[in-house]
Amino acid sequence: MQEVEPKLVPKGTITSAKGFLAGAVSAGLKTKGEQITDLGILFSEAPAVAAGMFTTNKIKAAPVILCQRHLAKRSAQAIIVNSGYANACTGEQGTRDAIEMANLAAKKLGISAQDVLVASTGVIGACLPVEHIRAGVERVTPSAEGGHELAKAITTTDAAPKELAVTFNISGSEIIIGGIAKGAGMIHPNLATLLCFLATDAAVDPDFLQLALKKAVDVSFNMITIDGDTSPNDTVLLLANGLAGNEVIADGLPAEMFQGALDEICLYLARQVVKGGEGATKLIEVRVEGASSVAEARLAARAIAASPLVKTAVHGCDPNWGRIIAALGRSGSQVEEAKLDLFLADVCLMEKGKPTPFDRERAKAILGQDEVNIRLCLNLGGGEATAWGCDLSEEYVKINSEYTT
Amino acid sequence: MQEVEPKLVPKGTITSAKGFLAGAVSAGLKTKGEQITDLGILFSEAPAVAAGMFTTNKIKAAPVILCQRHLAKRSAQAIIVNSGYANACTGEQGTRDAIEMANLAAKKLGISAQDVLVASTGVIGACLPVEHIRAGVERVTPSAEGGHELAKAITTTDAAPKELAVTFNISGSEIIIGGIAKGAGMIHPNLATLLCFLATDAAVDPDFLQLALKKAVDVSFNMITIDGDTSPNDTVLLLANGLAGNEVIADGLPAEMFQGALDEICLYLARQVVKGGEGATKLIEVRVEGASSVAEARLAARAIAASPLVKTAVHGCDPNWGRIIAALGRSGSQVEEAKLDLFLADVCLMEKGKPTPFDRERAKAILGQDEVNIRLCLNLGGGEATAWGCDLSEEYVKINSEYTT
Repeated sequence: MQEVEPKLVPKGTITSAKGFLAGAVSAGLKTKGEQITDLGILFSEAPAVAAGMFTTNKIKAAPVILCQRHLAKRSAQAIIVNSGYANACTGEQGTRDAIEMANLAAKKLGISAQDVLVASTGVIGACLPVEHIRAGVERVTPSAEGGHELAKAITTTDAAPKELAVTFNISGSEIIIGGIAKGAGMIHPNLATLLCFLATDAAVDPDFLQLALKKAVDVSFNMITIDGDTSPNDTVLLLANGLAGNEVIADGLPAEMFQGALDEICLYLARQVVKGGEGATKLIEVRVEGASSVAEARLAARAIAASPLVKTAVHGCDPNWGRIIAALGRSGSQVEEAKLDLFLADVCLMEKGKPTPFDRERAKAILGQDEVNIRLCLNLGGGEATAWGCDLSEEYVKINSEYTT
Repeated sequence: MQEVEPKLVPKGTITSAKGFLAGAVSAGLKTKGEQITDLGILFSEAPAVAAGMFTTNKIKAAPVILCQRHLAKRSAQAIIVNSGYANACTGEQGTRDAIEMANLAAKKLGISAQDVLVASTGVIGACLPVEHIRAGVERVTPSAEGGHELAKAITTTDAAPKELAVTFNISGSEIIIGGIAKGAGMIHPNLATLLCFLATDAAVDPDFLQLALKKAVDVSFNMITIDGDTSPNDTVLLLANGLAGNEVIADGLPAEMFQGALDEICLYLARQVVKGGEGATKLIEVRVEGASSVAEARLAARAIAASPLVKTAVHGCDPNWGRIIAALGRSGSQVEEAKLDLFLADVCLMEKGKPTPFDRERAKAILGQDEVNIRLCLNLGGGEATAWGCDLSEEYVKINSEYTT
């Protein structure tokens, strides 16, 4: 059977899927200037099946713990999210504040607080000014066009909002999946994006939905890195409200099509997060082939994409490729030096473990492009993986030296 | 029994120990300007017991592999070292070049090539210009004052040479241990310094010597981090020629005193390496107490000292302490948020998992000092460890964007 490629929805966002409304306001949580949206709500007009993936950090923000509790029943109908404050390392007050956020959204939307998921991003260790959120929620007006506003509201140091929607057809039912993400800093596997919300009007089996989300996150958000730090707030949520009227997706071709579309949207958003990394001027794609296993290929690709020395060399358009091999060597992946091939785009830098003479000016030119492709063949087995990172610039240091002050 | 503290030797260096000679010349391996010393030799007038610790990177430079082979017999009489070229990722040519370096030194010094250890540091993936080394070795004149020159010759992007010697007395025999190190970049556990050479005139049992070196490296060079990258060249070598005439050290109080002096010199050199880190403006000391085990305390301390977000916050004197807790959370160490205490010098930032109000201006002032002390009490057990790192500055990015170009 032939799979049909999902199509992009023009100006697609999280509210492109049927029955999803969103809105955002400036609640005064972000102090830089005036009128920055920093509080938003996503609402599904119908009850939805829900799935989530969360930070592996042992320090988990209060909203993460609340989400995990509310997701035990595999359903939800709304998400409330704020930026400016992470509500992490905030003790019992933090727990109370996250619950209050859920209560405020539930009251406004006329649903149970158990059906509200909560997410926060921003400074760690400062308590939420809940009175601002209380006043802000009153003013949020969810609408079918509100996805763009919500995408803006969740950004912190991001250069631009990240949003996309794709559509595909299953047995005559038009299905849409839309998503938004925020990134910029504290971006590293596992669960690299700080926040990503996805919404679909497909009817999906709840167990399959969780599995599909895990698979999509593994090849996308878990394969990107900006600075090697992970956040206590990392959250990916996916709501499926079934308003497309399709037969419930659980297996077979519909499941494959759904997975393909979900992967595509997660890959797009993940790459956007890296491109919009703090101080980033280019995307680095690291492809590792021929590893002993997929797990080892992933280890190697991520270590190279995360190496500060690789990142600074790419930033300076310096074809100092030994740093790539050094990062590979400490990645934990099995390596036999005498079998290694290394390419920068189509330029071979190392063959069977030996440096090859190469056109330095051409290598510099490749490193000067917006996207830099590094490819390593370990020639040991069939494992392959791709990771994405960004260059490390003086601007990254500047941004992160001045964040709370 | 009372241990006697080892004393500093005035202007101490690696040739402070009896019978050790060193010399260095400019062999033209480093291209920046003229007359930079980049090739050196350490020579012991008497055969010496020897120990070594090497990179854990799976990509090992040719000189590392040669050292490991020559150290199998636990003895050596000389070290030849160059900077400018790492002789890593250089295939079979690299192996031949490392052997030739050993041969050149052996011929000059009139000893067996099996008794020569070799070390290289510099750019990875470029073959050594051996003709420069051949001509350079001719001109090296080892002398008892040559330690300072050797310390200079092994630097690459280091701000200053790092050298020290300590002396102590065992049953009437005056013993000296001297050492030099180079660092600056690619500094991360395990085996953080690129190169460290140590020489002592003590008579030491070879098995004890290797064990003592491992212990000293574990609390010093393996607890420092500059950029999280490890090098294929990391090497620590220790030669003990016995010219002090003491009874062979193997156990008991003499062994404890030797270990204490060796730890001290390694700790000093390791801290100097961090202080001289690329672009570093301050030293960050991270002390973790009350961990479930020493291993977990080490994990936690190193993760915090290595976090780019902690490093940039310290650089900007920004008391954004949530980043410390976030790095702790992803370190792999067991953590219970509700038990955590966090201090910046004497300022408490978090107590039993709750943020405590603190004097922001005082915290900023502490972060403005040359040495910044971070202390975490996990309150779970008796494991403790200290790690050292440095801040991450725009200068680090600048240095590493322009290294080979």
